[in-house]
Amino acid sequence: MKNFSYLCKLFRKKIMKGFASDNYSGVHPQILKAISDVNVDHATAYGGDVYTEKAIQQFKQLLGNSVEVYFTFNGTAANVLGLKALTQPHHAVICAETAHIHVDECGAPERFTGCKLLTVPTKDGKLRIADIEKFQSLVDFEHHVQPKVISISQTTELGTLYTPDEIKVLADYAHSKNMYLQMDGARIANAAVALSLSIKEFTFDCGVDVLSFGGTKNGMMYGEAIVFADVSLCENFKYIRKQGMQLSSKMRYISAQFSAYLTDDLYLKTARHSNAMAQLLVEKLNTVSEIEITQKSSANAVFAKLPKAIIQPLQETYFFYEWNEDIHEARLMCSWDTTEKEIEDFVLLIKKLLK
Amino acid sequence: MKNFSYLCKLFRKKIMKGFASDNYSGVHPQILKAISDVNVDHATAYGGDVYTEKAIQQFKQLLGNSVEVYFTFNGTAANVLGLKALTQPHHAVICAETAHIHVDECGAPERFTGCKLLTVPTKDGKLRIADIEKFQSLVDFEHHVQPKVISISQTTELGTLYTPDEIKVLADYAHSKNMYLQMDGARIANAAVALSLSIKEFTFDCGVDVLSFGGTKNGMMYGEAIVFADVSLCENFKYIRKQGMQLSSKMRYISAQFSAYLTDDLYLKTARHSNAMAQLLVEKLNTVSEIEITQKSSANAVFAKLPKAIIQPLQETYFFYEWNEDIHEARLMCSWDTTEKEIEDFVLLIKKLLK
Amino acid sequence: MKNFSYLCKLFRKKIMKGFASDNYSGVHPQILKAISDVNVDHATAYGGDVYTEKAIQQFKQLLGNSVEVYFTFNGTAANVLGLKALTQPHHAVICAETAHIHVDECGAPERFTGCKLLTVPTKDGKLRIADIEKFQSLVDFEHHVQPKVISISQTTELGTLYTPDEIKVLADYAHSKNMYLQMDGARIANAAVALSLSIKEFTFDCGVDVLSFGGTKNGMMYGEAIVFADVSLCENFKYIRKQGMQLSSKMRYISAQFSAYLTDDLYLKTARHSNAMAQLLVEKLNTVSEIEITQKSSANAVFAKLPKAIIQPLQETYFFYEWNEDIHEARLMCSWDTTEKEIEDFVLLIKKLLK
Amino acid sequence: MKNFSYLCKLFRKKIMKGFASDNYSGVHPQILKAISDVNVDHATAYGGDVYTEKAIQQFKQLLGNSVEVYFTFNGTAANVLGLKALTQPHHAVICAETAHIHVDECGAPERFTGCKLLTVPTKDGKLRIADIEKFQSLVDFEHHVQPKVISISQTTELGTLYTPDEIKVLADYAHSKNMYLQMDGARIANAAVALSLSIKEFTFDCGVDVLSFGGTKNGMMYGEAIVFADVSLCENFKYIRKQGMQLSSKMRYISAQFSAYLTDDLYLKTARHSNAMAQLLVEKLNTVSEIEITQKSSANAVFAKLPKAIIQPLQETYFFYEWNEDIHEARLMCSWDTTEKEIEDFVLLIKKLLK
Repeated sequence: MKNFSYLCKLFRKKIMKGFASDNYSGVHPQILKAISDVNVDHATAYGGDVYTEKAIQQFKQLLGNSVEVYFTFNGTAANVLGLKALTQPHHAVICAETAHIHVDECGAPERFTGCKLLTVPTKDGKLRIADIEKFQSLVDFEHHVQPKVISISQTTELGTLYTPDEIKVLADYAHSKNMYLQMDGARIANAAVALSLSIKEFTFDCGVDVLSFGGTKNGMMYGEAIVFADVSLCENFKYIRKQGMQLSSKMRYISAQFSAYLTDDLYLKTARHSNAMAQLLVEKLNTVSEIEITQKSSANAVFAKLPKAIIQPLQETYFFYEWNEDIHEARLMCSWDTTEKEIEDFVLLIKKLLK
Repeated sequence: MKNFSYLCKLFRKKIMKGFASDNYSGVHPQILKAISDVNVDHATAYGGDVYTEKAIQQFKQLLGNSVEVYFTFNGTAANVLGLKALTQPHHAVICAETAHIHVDECGAPERFTGCKLLTVPTKDGKLRIADIEKFQSLVDFEHHVQPKVISISQTTELGTLYTPDEIKVLADYAHSKNMYLQMDGARIANAAVALSLSIKEFTFDCGVDVLSFGGTKNGMMYGEAIVFADVSLCENFKYIRKQGMQLSSKMRYISAQFSAYLTDDLYLKTARHSNAMAQLLVEKLNTVSEIEITQKSSANAVFAKLPKAIIQPLQETYFFYEWNEDIHEARLMCSWDTTEKEIEDFVLLIKKLLK
Repeated sequence: MKNFSYLCKLFRKKIMKGFASDNYSGVHPQILKAISDVNVDHATAYGGDVYTEKAIQQFKQLLGNSVEVYFTFNGTAANVLGLKALTQPHHAVICAETAHIHVDECGAPERFTGCKLLTVPTKDGKLRIADIEKFQSLVDFEHHVQPKVISISQTTELGTLYTPDEIKVLADYAHSKNMYLQMDGARIANAAVALSLSIKEFTFDCGVDVLSFGGTKNGMMYGEAIVFADVSLCENFKYIRKQGMQLSSKMRYISAQFSAYLTDDLYLKTARHSNAMAQLLVEKLNTVSEIEITQKSSANAVFAKLPKAIIQPLQETYFFYEWNEDIHEARLMCSWDTTEKEIEDFVLLIKKLLK
Repeated sequence: MKNFSYLCKLFRKKIMKGFASDNYSGVHPQILKAISDVNVDHATAYGGDVYTEKAIQQFKQLLGNSVEVYFTFNGTAANVLGLKALTQPHHAVICAETAHIHVDECGAPERFTGCKLLTVPTKDGKLRIADIEKFQSLVDFEHHVQPKVISISQTTELGTLYTPDEIKVLADYAHSKNMYLQMDGARIANAAVALSLSIKEFTFDCGVDVLSFGGTKNGMMYGEAIVFADVSLCENFKYIRKQGMQLSSKMRYISAQFSAYLTDDLYLKTARHSNAMAQLLVEKLNTVSEIEITQKSSANAVFAKLPKAIIQPLQETYFFYEWNEDIHEARLMCSWDTTEKEIEDFVLLIKKLLK
């Protein structure tokens, strides 16, 4: 985005909200309180504390007793280290051309795993077997990298969703080819709300092998969980995490966040709100004939083509990304703290600018 | 340490304090308050926010206007990415055999930089030119790795300190040989207090090229600063950090911590306290004839040989590490929240056990 | 290729020739003689010998006095180490989807450089600026890998050729964007013959920065040269080569091969023959109406769609690869030792099978 | 060695022999003939040829039917790729401080395996359990690299030898600790002759897991064999070799060399000669009272302290390395083509210089 620096400068001065990303929002008060609550006494560093023990138990209750849980600092690491656990450097990871691991992690997956990413173009950010079957022709030839993991994002980077059936089909296919299915769940809570399903129902119940379980885009401060389907997938993982520079010393402060996040369905409440705000935004934008919604989504992202002339003036007041500059497609992200009024004001300004 | 798991279990149940590590302590209230204070509105992710701008300015005031500052999640990353900025994979990093980068980072430096660590044994954890001159014989031969960085820790892993003169000598030597001087400053505040000097006086004023500036062991929650002497040393560093999986999305929460840490000398106050507690501990231990202090230190670590018979019973009540099991040498770390009473009680128990 | 193992077995038993690859052929007698000629006395290992000195001088005479030459064992290494010399791990290499570095080196480029390969689909294996301009949108954003090298193959993997003008345009573009142009010249001699130009005229004269200069597919036994445009591009390269496991101890035997290869235009003579044989093959195949030549080439590769029914029976006698199984496109490579009779017999068999 | 460049220059001009290294010598005529003999017809590239099949069978006859054999270009690669097959990046390789993998491979082992090398000082280049037991204290702690391979050289870099019993003790220890034993056999034939044992008797019969089987220092041109004890140790090794840039296209020329090398005990004949020459050299040097032999060896290396004054004049005529400049210790290597006369002349010159 050519005017990114300019927008940042505008944004910083006004301390306004916007639709740039769900990680521009702050930390939910209950998360902050949880951090404060565990700030007593000494606790064994590096995860040997009671708070971490408790958070891991909550994950097991949510996702099944056989899962194994490791915390990292951020989502890039959750994806990269999870993939590392499943691969050797001569392997390849199959993903959509739009995948965050391919586009937005500065080559960290290749760098730390040694693997090549094999990408396919998609309409909606979703992988389908028909698109990836061709990679089986690489198998068993030493000249070629060997496909080992299918990586999908739920929700996708285009705000779309896989149904449980679609995930099961990919997992079954992966396993039939001696591969794994990894899921980037940076917005996994938004997916759960959009699908009206528990996270377990569309992840490990469908055959997902490793899940990056994010919270930072949904009200947490930092920390991400890597969840493995079972212990056989992560036998040496503690070393991978440490060598990957992702072992937090005062881990209780990550654990406390996840504990609060998973308590009384906080993660669903915040996601439900941001999804609802996105649906409201779609509804309002649909009243503007000059605007075309480009991706069907029931989660917290809205993709829409805007008339070229209004983009810049609109960005003087609201921070958002022009996703595809060629077709003037904007990405509008709603967050756990987006308000109805912000959406109404935003669409009002659009209408005003269009006159 | 053979009984580490057992000690962890004891420790977890009692939620007691101890002398295991300065990262077992919690977060200073002013740090926690600072986090809470910035938890308003949206802020540009990945460091494009006003709080990060402010924290960086505070670092420049402290360390000189030409320094460049990047935040990472933890100290392992600060060391590893800082070294990466200065090296190519065929280079080598010279360090003490006891260096944290050699012993306690699970090979992360080799893994991410590709470099070999060239180690030398030392009495006190400090490097001297006489010990490292031999590595110059490797220079210019393609069969050998090429020495490029001298890495020192201040305070060292044995609690000892380099004087400014000693640092200057190493820096001058490094520069004369086309090498750099990197400093692991996980306990840099403790060093400043112990030396009664500003951090600038024994780092960049002496020729240090890159400094890992830690706070987590001295009252912060997470976050470490990599400080480069000037911009020429870190031209591509933003990519190294991102690819190194260390770019925090909601960076304002790291920046706010450092802002508070550097405001009104909080970092010196907390360090002054832990150093004072360590000196008190030394004083008290010196009253026990069976105990020998093994490293001279005016910072927050105490190394002492204890009679073998009392170590295990002592550990039933106080968590601490047996550093060198062959000679029954214990490492006793004091923290910003260690109390005089804890020290008194600890030495009382020692005396009781020795009867 | 599904029946690859079967074909190998057939081939091994018959010790027949075929059109599988130009590296199935043997070593030219003059190359073998040169190896024998230098097999006297002792010679300094690792390239410090007079034969290596001489070979490098011959390269300078051919390609310009400012070039720097390093020998490796094979072409994979020449490409990978050449790219490593120009890049940092956060960089990206732009290449065609069909590039050997992307398809046939088992991820070695990613593994050793850390870089991502950014690929574009092409009709003929050739890169054009219009196809790669989009990657400039990545520049300066830390979330994205940074394009640093454009990599092209001459001849391409589809047997096609870049004109000097096309190369110059790519080089100028690369340099204008602070990037480099790397050329995979595994079949550089065939390109020279096809273009009727000296190698210098379509490489360094056009702005190529680093060239993998191959000979193994054109009559040599082993060894490849990495040629840098000037010394500024390879300051630390001797360490990269050694750490890359590509420093030959008895280097004189590589150097002697290159010396003979470059003496009296041997490299052009062998290439001229294989190109001529390929043209003869095209001519003969054009007399068969059921066959369609799919790539225009004046070098030593022929790509042609064959009727499905004859492929397997034909492979019972002649070893060749089905390049694209979906459209029954075969790749037929001619070598320095391919004979007119073999081509005539091959086309005769095709005609017989088609009846 | 400070005067290395100077010596190289001298050496190049005179094309004399010397005692610098056994890889300064040429190729044995029978090896050269074997290369010539296979230079007929086409052969499947990348090892799918009959000559490679034959050579591998010869290795199985020599070392046991269960071994698996892969050829690489050189010894650095044989060591590095062999270690890679046995390790993950968080592992460590234990070796002597003098090990070639530690000193002379420019960090290639760390670079390609990610592992740290844990070194111990030794008197004679040999590892003993007492020296390496301390590394077990690292096991199971995520902060530390995990010892996984013990690497020994046979003969060692100091010309010394392990007895079969010593090897068995190390192998048993390694296996009892869930580790492997790797052997750098760059001079394995010299060891066999010195021990009067078959190679199998002091390698796989003793529990060695992977062996770098060298020939280049004993009359071959290029090529090294990695021999795994059984197939379970190298399941994905073909990809590791290709990604490691060590898959030779015209592999028949490596295979033919090994075939000849193993036929009629050629490898033993050449080694027997160089060992005998070294013993002769020791005998002659022992007649000079000013010279002290520093390592006991029955293989082809002689280490001896020379009077300082004669080293430089001696090097004007004979190329050799000053191994330890502090104590004026020279390394004198004998080769398959060293003559008795050379040794006599060398010692005569010493005597003359000492007068």
